Amino acid sequence: MTDDLDQRMHFAIDLARRAGELGLKYFRDLENLTIESKGHQDLVSDADREVELFVRAAIAEAYPQDGIVGEEHAPTAGRTGYVWVIDPIDGTANFVRGIPAWCVVIACARDGETVVGVIHEASSGETFHGRLGGGAFVNGRPIKASGAKALSEGSVGTGLSNRAATEHVAVLISMIMAEGGVFFRNASGALMLAYAAAGRLLGYVEEHMNAWDCLAGMLLVEEAGGTVLKPDPKTVISQGTQVIAGGSNIFPKLGALCTEAFRN
Amino acid sequence: MTDDLDQRMHFAIDLARRAGELGLKYFRDLENLTIESKGHQDLVSDADREVELFVRAAIAEAYPQDGIVGEEHAPTAGRTGYVWVIDPIDGTANFVRGIPAWCVVIACARDGETVVGVIHEASSGETFHGRLGGGAFVNGRPIKASGAKALSEGSVGTGLSNRAATEHVAVLISMIMAEGGVFFRNASGALMLAYAAAGRLLGYVEEHMNAWDCLAGMLLVEEAGGTVLKPDPKTVISQGTQVIAGGSNIFPKLGALCTEAFRN
Repeated sequence: MTDDLDQRMHFAIDLARRAGELGLKYFRDLENLTIESKGHQDLVSDADREVELFVRAAIAEAYPQDGIVGEEHAPTAGRTGYVWVIDPIDGTANFVRGIPAWCVVIACARDGETVVGVIHEASSGETFHGRLGGGAFVNGRPIKASGAKALSEGSVGTGLSNRAATEHVAVLISMIMAEGGVFFRNASGALMLAYAAAGRLLGYVEEHMNAWDCLAGMLLVEEAGGTVLKPDPKTVISQGTQVIAGGSNIFPKLGALCTEAFRN
Repeated sequence: MTDDLDQRMHFAIDLARRAGELGLKYFRDLENLTIESKGHQDLVSDADREVELFVRAAIAEAYPQDGIVGEEHAPTAGRTGYVWVIDPIDGTANFVRGIPAWCVVIACARDGETVVGVIHEASSGETFHGRLGGGAFVNGRPIKASGAKALSEGSVGTGLSNRAATEHVAVLISMIMAEGGVFFRNASGALMLAYAAAGRLLGYVEEHMNAWDCLAGMLLVEEAGGTVLKPDPKTVISQGTQVIAGGSNIFPKLGALCTEAFRN
């Protein structure tokens, strides 16, 4: 079984890098990109769709019996218990405007539990990867979540979407700063989760994230020795989840902040 | 005089890239970096000091009569009316933690007015440059500030420091979101100003910035067709300024938000 996972992990690392190369081709030619709005400040481009098709085709060829759930196309049911959960470009608003903070996200789940997670930032060439029980890495080097005990020791990443109340984010930010902390938002939730796994951020919190944006990063944080709010394995892929993830010492504080900020 | 400026501009572009290379050497070897705190969440490293010394030495050799003001070392008085205003690494908190969003900032001012501005993001290899009256560019291609008319059309960058009230930032963010906008904070003010000049952000606002963080970016925004709150040329280099900068259509809205958010 671990061999299966290792195979899928190496496949996912390679695939994320190839998908990143394809994404970069579009990113370097933004003037010719077609962009549409899916709703308020929710954008999609040719690049998202084409990179997702590329990733789906590669998975379908290598693991034709696995399921696939992605941001831009309809889900494919599988028969192995494995489901690939992918976001071809996380940080589309950055991507379409030329901000280099975007990434390819590939997770693989088995019965609702994430077993492989890869987040590849094409602009910087960093690939974060992890396998259940196998640790977390960036470009092959082990990473560790923050050991900080207080918010004043670093920054907390956060994000927003049209699936959660914006006022909650403002309250959260106020509370972080009131404790001597600093907020960070580079508009790619998956990338910020990877940064939390690497201890670059104390943690990452968001009231609701879709599975393709958060599963890979949450596995990375756990495999890097951090702690995450466990999502419901029965519903996380179809419905998403609240995300609280970070260093184990700071996790209770992040949880308390979110309970307060997201309660109304 | 324009020839003088063009010479200084080309010198600054080349210097920022060389300084970025030096910074990258430290960035790739973070485990051996010495980091100190200058105050609450205000960090400085060997890399900041060494890159600043490198930049100062290059300026002193090429323009020995010009003044130099930098973040980490004492100012050097000049005799030409030209003063170089430099931040060797803007986004030190990112740098020391391994987040690639940091940049080298080199501005040149004459009698308090910025005449050359260069912002170089070493991780992505993007160099933003502008000269008074000469336009603004990224890697040689012209850039334009946003033409957006409403906050709902994009993101507004902001930042915080221990020189301004954190509550003001929370109010500002609430107000941006209440108008259907989105905030962005990648923790490098100069880089976000460069993104505003390139129309990647609608604008950038911060209650107080030091001259070395903001002069280059403010010139870029203006030369990219945007609008900035004009700082007092007599005091900006020594005391810094409030920063409101962005596309010309959205500028009045940004100004109104800041008046409201920063007033108490």
